[in-house]
Amino acid sequence: MLMSKLLGERFKEKPGEATSISHIYLLRGGYVRQVTNGIYSLLPPAKRVVSKIENIIRQEMDAIDGQEVLFPVALPGDLWRESGRFDAVGSELVRFKDRGGKDMVLGMTHEEAAVHLARTEAKSYNNYPFMIYQIQTKFRDEPRARGGLIRVREFTMKDAYSFHTSQEDLEAYYEQCLQAYHRIFARAGVPETVCVQSDTGMMGGKVAHEFMLLTDIGEDTIIICDSCDYQSNMEVATGKLPVATTEEGTIEEVHTPNAHTIEEVANMLGVTADKTLKACVFEMEGHKEPLIVFIRGDLQVNEAKLQKVVKATITPFEKYEDTPNLCFGFMGPYNLDARDAKIIFDESLRNEKNLVVGGNKKDYHIKGISISRDIKDADFHDVAEVLEGQECPCCHGKLQFKRGVEVGNIFQLGTRYSESMGMTYIDSDGKAKTPIMGCYGIGVGRLLACIIEARHDEWGPIWPMSVAPWQVHICVLKSKKTDMDAIGNEIYNKLSSKYEVIMDDRNVGAGVQFADADLLGIPVRVVVGEKNLKEGKVELMTRDKSVKKLVDLGDVEKEVAALIAELS
Amino acid sequence: MLMSKLLGERFKEKPGEATSISHIYLLRGGYVRQVTNGIYSLLPPAKRVVSKIENIIRQEMDAIDGQEVLFPVALPGDLWRESGRFDAVGSELVRFKDRGGKDMVLGMTHEEAAVHLARTEAKSYNNYPFMIYQIQTKFRDEPRARGGLIRVREFTMKDAYSFHTSQEDLEAYYEQCLQAYHRIFARAGVPETVCVQSDTGMMGGKVAHEFMLLTDIGEDTIIICDSCDYQSNMEVATGKLPVATTEEGTIEEVHTPNAHTIEEVANMLGVTADKTLKACVFEMEGHKEPLIVFIRGDLQVNEAKLQKVVKATITPFEKYEDTPNLCFGFMGPYNLDARDAKIIFDESLRNEKNLVVGGNKKDYHIKGISISRDIKDADFHDVAEVLEGQECPCCHGKLQFKRGVEVGNIFQLGTRYSESMGMTYIDSDGKAKTPIMGCYGIGVGRLLACIIEARHDEWGPIWPMSVAPWQVHICVLKSKKTDMDAIGNEIYNKLSSKYEVIMDDRNVGAGVQFADADLLGIPVRVVVGEKNLKEGKVELMTRDKSVKKLVDLGDVEKEVAALIAELS
Repeated sequence: MLMSKLLGERFKEKPGEATSISHIYLLRGGYVRQVTNGIYSLLPPAKRVVSKIENIIRQEMDAIDGQEVLFPVALPGDLWRESGRFDAVGSELVRFKDRGGKDMVLGMTHEEAAVHLARTEAKSYNNYPFMIYQIQTKFRDEPRARGGLIRVREFTMKDAYSFHTSQEDLEAYYEQCLQAYHRIFARAGVPETVCVQSDTGMMGGKVAHEFMLLTDIGEDTIIICDSCDYQSNMEVATGKLPVATTEEGTIEEVHTPNAHTIEEVANMLGVTADKTLKACVFEMEGHKEPLIVFIRGDLQVNEAKLQKVVKATITPFEKYEDTPNLCFGFMGPYNLDARDAKIIFDESLRNEKNLVVGGNKKDYHIKGISISRDIKDADFHDVAEVLEGQECPCCHGKLQFKRGVEVGNIFQLGTRYSESMGMTYIDSDGKAKTPIMGCYGIGVGRLLACIIEARHDEWGPIWPMSVAPWQVHICVLKSKKTDMDAIGNEIYNKLSSKYEVIMDDRNVGAGVQFADADLLGIPVRVVVGEKNLKEGKVELMTRDKSVKKLVDLGDVEKEVAALIAELS
Repeated sequence: MLMSKLLGERFKEKPGEATSISHIYLLRGGYVRQVTNGIYSLLPPAKRVVSKIENIIRQEMDAIDGQEVLFPVALPGDLWRESGRFDAVGSELVRFKDRGGKDMVLGMTHEEAAVHLARTEAKSYNNYPFMIYQIQTKFRDEPRARGGLIRVREFTMKDAYSFHTSQEDLEAYYEQCLQAYHRIFARAGVPETVCVQSDTGMMGGKVAHEFMLLTDIGEDTIIICDSCDYQSNMEVATGKLPVATTEEGTIEEVHTPNAHTIEEVANMLGVTADKTLKACVFEMEGHKEPLIVFIRGDLQVNEAKLQKVVKATITPFEKYEDTPNLCFGFMGPYNLDARDAKIIFDESLRNEKNLVVGGNKKDYHIKGISISRDIKDADFHDVAEVLEGQECPCCHGKLQFKRGVEVGNIFQLGTRYSESMGMTYIDSDGKAKTPIMGCYGIGVGRLLACIIEARHDEWGPIWPMSVAPWQVHICVLKSKKTDMDAIGNEIYNKLSSKYEVIMDDRNVGAGVQFADADLLGIPVRVVVGEKNLKEGKVELMTRDKSVKKLVDLGDVEKEVAALIAELS
């Protein structure tokens, strides 16, 4: 490839709309251009990186017996009705009518399509287990598109679906896929990607993991133990919590005028927040009764954990007028007239004693409540958000908070889709059974952006050899006296027969050539300049600037080969 | 790959919905499954063929300096408004609103996206010429989806866009691309694909060619000279026509009561249809006045040719009451009171003499009209449909009609998109100029189907080595006495290290294995059976049944290598 013909302008200025490093370099290096909010065209260098990432993914999926297929982008709404997601998923799912008036959706994930295909083809236990995957365009009408390729509305995704006849078989394959993911991220140049437990969200199922690249631009919080290998995202993280008060107290009603918040109550009564109990009230989708969560005063409810417990989408409660028996601002578990409300106690309260709780009447609290002594049949669940520095649930280490970007996720779906869509196979005992599924995703464009986040310097991306758009970049510095092009072409032709080479043949200064080369981030660079040529030499360097040396013109091929081997 | 794990049922019965050979085999061989009307999922064998076709296309596009990019599937409506196509294109263009209420479309072709990307990146004449291409999903809400992958609503397409600073440069590149297309079709196994002149349709532009695979299931008519290499589709075909009458006649009004059709008039007056003139009346979109076309009585108007002449969409005329001065059924060019009508004469009339024409009053015709003598300022255009057997426009051969399927098309777009979308570059003279474009498409799935149409026998597809899903198919026939699996595995492991191999490891009869192997259509087959093994031999055959021989077990690798080389 010649730089003079490469489509894509590179530039120096930081683009106004970009804040993350990857977004800045993707624009400045001529990798992507926005077509509209969250929708990008890829220019040749980015497309080349994407193809290489896709090939790595393909190889690793094939290595664990994956079979590549292709599902449609546009899917019939009726298929999504079978799984219940046509109505359940919000406006991130694009719906449209075809010319015949039929409901269609743009696939944002392909569980329905995978079950549709597999349910007519895998009717005997002999066909199991199997995994099918595709690398295909997806559309998700994301309200908060941002960060260049980090969070977009249209993206290329590898999505895989495995089908099993037992939970054990799913678990064994899930572990294989988890290891394949580690290999993919390592080969793509981000071996530091961590695997954390995660919530299953709208996918359903029980066990899930996310692969996170730790980076300050990440919008997810990752919880990592500073001592053992416990890693989790916020939605499922737990921690050990010392009991705040171990001695019983005496029950006593106290006047707390206008003290609505925990801070106000604690101040007024001279205690710390962890010696109080607070009530949080929610509405549950599809339920009339309010959901009351009691939790220790110093903690926050984690809504993702809570939703999993109550199996419903929750929103803050607002229908105060419908529940005159609940005394908002002064609600407590002791002598509560909650009628039809659903009540949950966070695990943090289980062993607490001598707590200040709401008095269930305006301007009154009650002191001295011990949960185990004073509250009957409390229903305990872990719905609290972990705190930074809290004790690890697995050891005595401390939990640290990190920022991360999700580059892949894997789910044990169970029978969530196979059952709702009526997929069965005939088992060896002659009976019809429902297959158990797993699904496994990687966002290709986001992975590209994450590689830049992890591998760059102040001048541009530093592509790992495995995914670099080209392997060798030749800069031919122009001269008025010497015909540098002829020498450049000779090196270019030699190296092109073995490697992917781009040559800067433009009549521009060395500064522009070097700046552009840094933005293209090619691992090996050959600089052909008049001064060195007089000594019969060219300059050889690596993009990360760790190697920089003069080599004999005759040794270029050998030296480049050695450098490529070293960097591969 | 092991057949026991390959996803996809194969079956014997002809599927009710399929009529074309490719559709039947795609279903019977477990290649595709319909998700909804005109939308398919590809199973592993089809996906493998598609990937190979894509790689051939990619190599040939790269060889003519193409740069691979990726445009979005979902595009902003505003971009299509810039080119005028948001409103101009009918309901085959899917439109939807995003969550912010903005108009979006699903790309059915990407001229707008290509200009959007290129117009910010190619601002100097130095950047030209260049070609960018993508291989991406397209959606076209086709009213007549049919024939399996022949005419679908969602499909993978290679679309390329070239940008030039002169018409000559475009034409030279267009020819290069045309040759690349011939190489692609030859490499994909359909070298008999023909290139015909075609209409530019909704793409705009002036010159266009279609690549057609001649097959009885084709819905297009191709006109081919039986003597020279003239090839055209119906929309632009022309032919030479001998003059029907060379002698002048005398003008005479004749009473022709109730003779409305050419047949009725000719019968009544005892002449053949080629000695009459007929009038065809159309409405032109965006015009008030009617369009009257006079043409020789034995010919038909070709609407595509006519639309190109008048530069408007035409429909049959129906507003008779608005034009009382026109005497429908008896309209003729002589003494016609046509007022604001647009009048066109087909070239067939230019030299005709002594014609019967409408008398412009009810129940009367006029005999003896010579166009050159009696009609002033006639505006001649070729708008007639060619007839089978008509003389070739280039030689004295005869035109033959064939059926064909379009597998690719190329267009000289000119400035149709660059101008409407305001794309300019600065030329060497410092002036802003508008680039000249070409575009070049290949439907990948349709090409796959066409390969089956061209390469099959009564048992299934016969894949060319270049696109076959696997290169070698091993059938291991089960036996109660001998452990055939061990021997099969040994051959499988040996061959798999060099070739793409699928092995039938299922415990099914030879008949089922052979029928399935024929449906998978793999070029080279190795049959491992007990009887031959006793002699130390296995059977080696080609899918097209032209080679079938016993080879020594020790020679399998060598013999397979020779056969693959021969077939490649």
